[in-house]
Order: sequence, then structure tokens, then C-alpha cells
Amino acid sequence: MTQVLHRGPAAPPRLRVELQPTGRRVDVEAGSDLLSAVQAAAVGIVAVCGGHGACGSCKVRVVRGDLAPPTDAERSLLGPGELAGGFRLACQARVLSDCTVGIPEGSLSASQRLAFEGGGVAVGADTPVLPVDVEVEPPGLGDLRSDAARLLDAIAATNGLRPEVDVPVLAQLPTRLRAEGWSVRAVVSQPERGLPRLVGVLPPGTEPLGLAVDLGTTKLAAYLVSMESGTTLAQAGAMNPQIAFGEDVMSRITRANESPANARLLRDSVVEALGSLVEQLCAQSGRSYYDIVDAVVVGNTAMHHLLLGLPVRQLGEAPYVPAASDPVEAPAASIGLRLNPGAPCYLPPNIAGFVGADHVAMVLAAGLGSTERTVLGLDIGTNTEISLSYRGHLRSCSTASGPAFEGARIRQGMRAAPGAVEHVRYVGDRFLVQTVDNAPAIGICGSGILDAVAEARKAGVLDSRGALSRQHPLVWRSEHGPSCLLVGADQAGNGRDIFFTRSDVNEIQLAKGAVRAGTKVLLAEAGITEEALDEVVMAGAFGTYLDVGSAVAIGMLPAVPLDRYRQIGNGAGRGAVEMLVSRDQRSLAREVAKRSEYIELTVYPGFVDIFADSLPL
Amino acid sequence: MTQVLHRGPAAPPRLRVELQPTGRRVDVEAGSDLLSAVQAAAVGIVAVCGGHGACGSCKVRVVRGDLAPPTDAERSLLGPGELAGGFRLACQARVLSDCTVGIPEGSLSASQRLAFEGGGVAVGADTPVLPVDVEVEPPGLGDLRSDAARLLDAIAATNGLRPEVDVPVLAQLPTRLRAEGWSVRAVVSQPERGLPRLVGVLPPGTEPLGLAVDLGTTKLAAYLVSMESGTTLAQAGAMNPQIAFGEDVMSRITRANESPANARLLRDSVVEALGSLVEQLCAQSGRSYYDIVDAVVVGNTAMHHLLLGLPVRQLGEAPYVPAASDPVEAPAASIGLRLNPGAPCYLPPNIAGFVGADHVAMVLAAGLGSTERTVLGLDIGTNTEISLSYRGHLRSCSTASGPAFEGARIRQGMRAAPGAVEHVRYVGDRFLVQTVDNAPAIGICGSGILDAVAEARKAGVLDSRGALSRQHPLVWRSEHGPSCLLVGADQAGNGRDIFFTRSDVNEIQLAKGAVRAGTKVLLAEAGITEEALDEVVMAGAFGTYLDVGSAVAIGMLPAVPLDRYRQIGNGAGRGAVEMLVSRDQRSLAREVAKRSEYIELTVYPGFVDIFADSLPL
Repeated sequence: MTQVLHRGPAAPPRLRVELQPTGRRVDVEAGSDLLSAVQAAAVGIVAVCGGHGACGSCKVRVVRGDLAPPTDAERSLLGPGELAGGFRLACQARVLSDCTVGIPEGSLSASQRLAFEGGGVAVGADTPVLPVDVEVEPPGLGDLRSDAARLLDAIAATNGLRPEVDVPVLAQLPTRLRAEGWSVRAVVSQPERGLPRLVGVLPPGTEPLGLAVDLGTTKLAAYLVSMESGTTLAQAGAMNPQIAFGEDVMSRITRANESPANARLLRDSVVEALGSLVEQLCAQSGRSYYDIVDAVVVGNTAMHHLLLGLPVRQLGEAPYVPAASDPVEAPAASIGLRLNPGAPCYLPPNIAGFVGADHVAMVLAAGLGSTERTVLGLDIGTNTEISLSYRGHLRSCSTASGPAFEGARIRQGMRAAPGAVEHVRYVGDRFLVQTVDNAPAIGICGSGILDAVAEARKAGVLDSRGALSRQHPLVWRSEHGPSCLLVGADQAGNGRDIFFTRSDVNEIQLAKGAVRAGTKVLLAEAGITEEALDEVVMAGAFGTYLDVGSAVAIGMLPAVPLDRYRQIGNGAGRGAVEMLVSRDQRSLAREVAKRSEYIELTVYPGFVDIFADSLPL
Repeated sequence: MTQVLHRGPAAPPRLRVELQPTGRRVDVEAGSDLLSAVQAAAVGIVAVCGGHGACGSCKVRVVRGDLAPPTDAERSLLGPGELAGGFRLACQARVLSDCTVGIPEGSLSASQRLAFEGGGVAVGADTPVLPVDVEVEPPGLGDLRSDAARLLDAIAATNGLRPEVDVPVLAQLPTRLRAEGWSVRAVVSQPERGLPRLVGVLPPGTEPLGLAVDLGTTKLAAYLVSMESGTTLAQAGAMNPQIAFGEDVMSRITRANESPANARLLRDSVVEALGSLVEQLCAQSGRSYYDIVDAVVVGNTAMHHLLLGLPVRQLGEAPYVPAASDPVEAPAASIGLRLNPGAPCYLPPNIAGFVGADHVAMVLAAGLGSTERTVLGLDIGTNTEISLSYRGHLRSCSTASGPAFEGARIRQGMRAAPGAVEHVRYVGDRFLVQTVDNAPAIGICGSGILDAVAEARKAGVLDSRGALSRQHPLVWRSEHGPSCLLVGADQAGNGRDIFFTRSDVNEIQLAKGAVRAGTKVLLAEAGITEEALDEVVMAGAFGTYLDVGSAVAIGMLPAVPLDRYRQIGNGAGRGAVEMLVSRDQRSLAREVAKRSEYIELTVYPGFVDIFADSLPL
């Protein structure tokens, strides 16, 4: 036995705090606040007022362990229901024992939220690709079967399948079979429709991989997925290089219509970007492109058409019909993707000209495709696609919410890059802001301007029409019209005032009005009111970043309790991964696209009035 | 009533002669000989002695009408059975009434025989492509279906089919549907296996076309066929440009193995040649490549592999196995063929490394695929493929007969071009010859050297070992060894003696020995002798040109009555056309390739002895 003598005052005991859902652990001194603990664990948490108990944005939920009783600030900023449910403000709650604390998605900073994307999905018997390990009989004078025939015979002897073999796979066989000493892992695709096909011949025991891509108008996201475990092994993102041809879908359609060479350029630019994403994924995971034997690409209808080389003229002219809406399966090589030469690429169905396969993917990821509950799903972007499932009936619409949520057309707008104001709280008589990566403020991103408008409205700085109160000390008439200060030049990263203007507010009104009007139409068509919603699922980058409370406050989102909201991150990407590893999900996508009732808002009776009624804050 | 007064001697009455199988008609004076009639009708007929009743080569068969009684020459040159069967010598038989005369294939000159190729084939319910005329509902704000969906709905409403649509066809739809005012002829493929696919969208009422190609080592033959009537609308031929890489299959395999770039060059050269054939066919028929919605390409296994970009290394090394033997269906565009962008290209199965799809096609064209009769089929060329059907059991082999039959390795050998000696008869004490197009003799083609050897043997100029008799006045020792004069320099087109040498005879012995030995093995495997053969079908250019009597005389072909022989011209091309218009024929091809028992002669017990026994003349 060793006796340890303490000299001097005892150090405070170290306590362990476990953070959910990441499972990250951190040791802190007894009596520390949870905000310090979370920050020490390098988990990005929203704390607009900087930890002064003033803004209420650093909400967490205590799952286990003892903490000091709620402070006055917590009692004032949290509702009694929240307190009873274990919610605390991280900056106020002090740790008295080892504990486990959950961080709601709404309290995570934008970059942190994205880190949750692309988690694993389950792989079942409905896997689209089946690896079959076979020992192939080598040829000899007494056995002159072709390479393909002897491989197929071996596969049939192993599992009874006799897949078709296309030329790109046939071309690999002689070399590959001999290089592997006639012992290989054949990968057989079991498509949703049609005959099974041999899609790749890998070294024995190789885990086959799949590629899922969300081809967004602005961003590309790619996921490398194990087709055996469903685990996402690597993910990578990039801007869509087609931005050089126009920020929005319509301007790209116009460019593509100018000449076949332009359409080709649009296509080539995105194919090249996807190629470099695939390279990144392979480098990250230490795997070969050759092991990628299946792919799913989702995108809106225009992205889908441009990638496949389909004409887009009819997409850009009333009545805006797609060339194709059914699922497409094409050789990945024919699209220009460098995967295993035999890999197919699956593009899920489109619902309509402005409701594409990316929304179908989001509908799947959000569980709207197979629910009897009443669920609203929104994929908010330049175009916002909305679906409502009510009693198993799906209705969809698309609404032109404009680029304001992406920071465009906002005087000091910017993307959610470091230094962008992403959260705003009005405390006392001024605005407190939190920026991306806590860098000094240089502009405002979509969630920041949304917060700013909601807080300004609550504080009476704005009226319901969006007019700024001239009486308020932060409001002045700048060269850009009535303006409201968020961050003084002395605090800003670029030495200039960060403010928003009346016309910024109007942009937000137009955007939120469009989203609200679309929602109202779907509810009206279903014959229900928003109280009937069991759940509201928000997908997409902005739908994930935004403060749901603020969006509800300005009337953009239905006024249902916040715990009915779910923010699922890149739903399109997740849906793509689900379809990648599941034939059932592909069938469900086909079925969803088919039974989804598309409502064209531009010709919906009374839509202009519904839209006008949705504008006030 | 008009009375006609004859003044002076009456002109001899004009009589009508109808020639079969062409149906061509010609009017001649009473008492004319049939040879003049046939020549007047511009039908190429063999008449080696020039119409002097000396050689017996201008055999015809009288179907109907009166002729003068047989001459002494006929009685001596035709057997009693032939005379009883209506056979006459055209140069001797004089016309006494209107008559109908059949010209057996063996009496037609080479160029004339080829003119019979590519006749129509019947199109039945098993047509691989089904034209569907549809009126498509144009889109409107109340009907936002995609272009593809509305077309598919219209097709389904018309005939219940709902075909798959691949990207190349999707890409045509928006433009094509609008250009045709929403009234189109959709062409649906009904593949042998797998789902129906939309392969083209044509202007309403357009007759869909198909392309059949025989991809020979030496020659390419292409046929443009109506997929509605089965009629061959145009045909065109060209040399295989791969000849620049080597005359025979093995040397091309060697070149392809040297580098991927070489393999690519081999592929590109033949793809380019096919492209120019397609252009010729379109120009000849006044049709557009866009109307070609299906294709069938047959070739030997090496041609097949090189066209598809499959590796050929294993084809060139023992045990010579193909990469693929099953039928392949690939987009024509992926092979580099410029047809309708949606057109598939079907490549029938190969039997073995040296028995390719061209032989399968020939087996179909010859009716060997579905017969209970005992039929031998030979496709004679540099490699000779032989199949024997006995009691429904098919056996095949391939034998290296060498290029002698194509005029190669023969001292004065040449292809069957104008001036090539193609027929030889020994009459009196000298050789009489007929040349291609009756041009002055400049060399000897395969059928000519075969005839020369057979006639020389009959005349005792040659012994059974192939030695030339020094006693014969036409034999002398030239600088090339013992030689035998065919055409004197004064008669020749190039002012030089046309002769054959002992080593030419030996080349023919090796070639005919290989063919005979292969035939013997197949007969032995079936346990029958040649007398059991109900029919012997000869295909390929040389198999069509050659004089069957001569080939039998030198022991190359089985000694069965000549009326059991059938020369079908380009059987591979005809089989390709049959598969082009018939799914049943494609299924039969698959079945034939599967159940055909391939016998590898190089390892066949005692083959060397069988071959040696087959050499004597």
C-alpha cells in the first residue's frame, strides 16, 4: 500500500462529462459550467451572448448526473416544461458529479451539425450488390469454356445466380482472372428491375464500395459507402462549378440552350468535379476507384438532365416538363464517372420539373415515404421543395424562395463561411451575435439574417410589414435606406459596421412568404391545419443551420411545438446513401415519385392572395 | 379486220426464254442456243470451252418448253441421269418454243453467285423490334408528365407495353416529339432476354431498318434490311482494313497484344470501315442512319473480341479460350457504330476460340440448327469451320486450311478479281480456262487452282502424290520447279505464261487435306460414313465459287452425289440477317452455340494420321 500525502489545498476533484450524441468525453473541475466543458471537448455550440445567461441559445439536456440548481437566468429564459424535461443553459449549469449531457441539434453550430451527416445505414437482404467469392476452374485443353462462361458457371454453382455480363466487365475478365489466380470476388448487381448483372470482379475478400452523390445547384456532396456494412467511409464536398454559368437553375438552363457546346461544358464541368471528389474519397479511405461498383446520384431535375446530357429547353419554358421522370440506370462510365468500369449509376425518379430526385431522396431520408403520420418535409434553398404526407397520401410543391437564405441579395450577405453572423439574439437593448467558427464578424449568412429579423420583430425594432422603427437607437437611414446595426465597426472583422436594411428584411419576407404559402397550400389540399402536423422535418444546409424558433416566430414555419421539429442535415445525401444500399428504398423512391401528387403553385387558384397573406412578420 | 401481207422470206419467230431463279426474261430467235440466250440476259454463266460443247461446264436444267434433242456432245458429257432430269448443256441446246430454264448455282460465275446473297427473309411475330404509332398528349399546365412518361403512357395505351428507356433515347425525346408534333412511330425492342426497351423514335410511318454485318478476317459485308418486310434494301462490301496489321487472325492477335494502342488501332480501323459501309448503304437506299434501330454483327472470335475491345491475349495462347462466348448485346454507339443513338447491337454467341459467331450464323442459314437430317456445313476460308448435324446432335471443329484457297501462297495466285482464272477444264490435250468477267487471264484464284489440280489429276498430268508427269507436253521444269501451263503468254492479259507448280499443288493438298481431315473426325465422332450425309452445305466466298465436282474429285469433299450439295453464298451474312429480324433465330443461335460439341483437332487422338491419309489426290 502506498500512502499519498496531500500538501497544500486539495485540487478540486475532476469530473467526467459525456456529450451526446457524439459520445465525446471531457474531464472538468467540479463546479465548472457545462459550456466550458462542451467547448473544451471542441464541440461547436451556439452561445450568442458569450456565456452570460442573456440569450438562451446554449440549451442542453441533462441525461444523468447532478448539477447545481437552475439560476435566475435559466428560470427566465427556459420554460417550466423545458426545465422539467431536463433542459438547462450550458453557460449556467454547474457540474457536481460525473454526468451525461445531450446537445440538441438546434444548439449546435452549423459546421458541427454537418459533422453528423452520412452516418451508417443498415444493409439488408435487399442490397443491390451481392459479393460472391468463387474459385474459377482454370482453362485447359479439356476445358475450353470462355473466361466469362467459366466464371458464370462458378457463380451459379455458388449461389444459383447467372448474371448478364456487359462488355466493360467482359473486357476486364481475362486479365483480372489470371492476375488473381482464378480466385476472385464477383459482384453481382440485383437491380430493382431487369436481370442481375455482373458489375465487377474484385480481388478475393474485397469489400465492395458504393458512391452516393448529392448534386446540388450550389454544392456537391459525395459519400463513399461500404456496400457490406452501410458505413460511410469518407465524405467530401465541393462547390458546383456550374455556378460559373449562373447561380440559379434558370440561368444555367438558359446557358445550356444557347448551344450544344455550352450544354456540354456545363456537363463536363460537373463531371470533372465529381471525378475529383471520387479521388478525394479514395485518398481519404485508402481505397481504389476500382472497388466502387455502384453509384446513386440525386439532384434537382435540371441538374439531373444536365448530368445525363438530356435537353433542358422544355424545362425552362412553360409548362416546365422534364424529359424524364422515371428512374434511370446507366453505366457510370457513360456518365463520365471513373468507378469500376462495370459499375452502374442509379438516378432516382423526379416528381416534376421543379421537384427532383433530391427531394425524393429527402422524402425517403425523412421517412415521409412510408408513414401514416402527418409529416411535413421541407428542403429549403433557392427553390424550396415541400412535401406533406397525410394518411399515407403525399403531396408536393416547389416554391421559388429565392437565394436570400443563401446570403444572396442581402446587402451584407455571405455564405456560412468563417466570420458570417449565424446566430443573433436581442438582449437588453442590443444585438448579440455568434459567427461561424467564432471568427470576427464580416457579414451575415442566411440563418443570421433570419435570426436578426425574428429578434428585431420580437424587440419591436421591426413592425409586421417589415418597416424598421425610426425611434430605435440602432436604426438609422444609411445610403442603403433604413438600416439596423448588428455589430459595430470596432467589433467587426473588416472594421465596418455589420447591419441589415429594410430591403434585406423584404427579401426575407418574400422568401419566408413563399415557403409559408407553399405549406399552406399543401395543408389546405389535405384539408388540415398546421396543428395536425405530427412532425416537421427540415433538410438541406439552410434547413439545418436555421434557428427553428426564429423561423416559427416570423411565420415562416408552422407554429407547432419546437419538439415536433427535426433537422436532418443533408437529407438528399442521406436518402442517396439509403438508396445506394437498398433496393427496397429504390422501389420506394419509384413509388413515392409516382404517387406523389404534384401541385403547381403558379396556377393554383388564389395563390397570389395566399402568398400576400404569408408576407407579414 | 386487218390483213397482213408477208413479203419476202418470213423472219424467224421470236421466242421467250425465262431464266430461273432470277426470273429474268429474254427474247431470242427460234433455233438459238441457250448459252446465247443466257449471255444476252447478262447472266454470268460458266462456259470454259467458249461454247464448243467440249467442257460440259454450262449445265442448265429445262423446266418447261421444247428444245432440239441432245447432241452427241451432250450425250458424252452429261450422264443419263442428268439427261433424264432435264439437264442440258446451254451451248448445245437449241430453243424451239418459249421456255423456262433453271441455272444451277454451280454453272453461275462467281460474281453472279454473289448477286443472290441477301435476299429477303420472312419477318414474323418474333421480330426483335416492334413499331408503335402513337399520338402523344402534348404537355399543358394541367398535364405535367415528363416527355418520357407521356410517350410511354401512349405506347402502353396502344399495345400494353411499357418499355425501359435508356439515356441516349431519353436525350432525343424532347426535340423529336416536338419536331414531329407529338405524333411519332416509337420502336420498341423485344430482346431475347431482359425487359423491352425503347430503341428509337421515328417520324410517323417510317419503316424501321436493321443492319447486318459479316465481319470477315478478309472482307466486310453489310446489309441494310427492312425490319418490317425482311427485304435487303442495300448491300455493300469492303476489305477488312485490319489486313494492314496482318493477313491472318493470329498475326492480328500478336499485333493487338503488343500494346493497348495497337488493339485500339485495330478496333478503330474496322469501326471506321463499318461506318463508311453504313454511309454507302444509306446513300444506296436513300435512307437515314437514324432509321437504323437494330444491328447484328457476326465474325470469328478474334474479330468479335477486337471489335468489342476485349483482350485477345488468351485467344492467341494455348488453350485458346475466348473472353466471352455468350451472346452480347451492347449499345451500337458504344461500339462506335453511328446508327439511331438508341439502337442496340447484337453479337451472337461464339462456340470456341476458333469457331465464332460467323459460323453459328452460317449454321442457322444452312438450317443445321434445327434439323433431324444428317447435314454437313462447311465455311471454307483461311480457317475452315465445319459442323455436322446428326440426329439433332451438332459437332463442330475448326481446321487451319491456310490461305491457298484465297490465292495466297500460290505462285500466280490472286483474289477472284477480273482476269483471275476461276474455272479450268482439260479438253483434248490442253487446258481451257474461264476468267472472272471474261477478262484476259492474269493469274489464278482459289477455285481456278482447285479446278486445275482436279482436271490435271483426271488427265493423268498429276499423280496421287501431287507430282507432275514429266512426259506431258504442258509440263516443264521452270525456275520454280516442275510447272504446268494453263494459258500461253500469247493468250494472257499480262503477256506471260499462266501456270501452276508442284508446290502450288502441294499447298492445295495441305488445304484440302485439312478440310477433309476435319470432316472425317466429325463423321467418326458421329459414328457414320460420308454416304450417310443427306446434304452438304457450302458457305463463304470460296465455298460458293468452287466447283464442287472438282473438290470431290480431289478428295476434299465427301464423295456423295452432287445434288446433295448446296452452295449458299455468304451464309454468315444471311444468318446475320435472319437473326436481325428474328428473336427465335437469336434464341436458336444461343442454343446452337451451347449444344454444339466442339472438337479440338490439335489434341484429337490420331489426328496427324487422319490428316496424312487425307493428302493424296
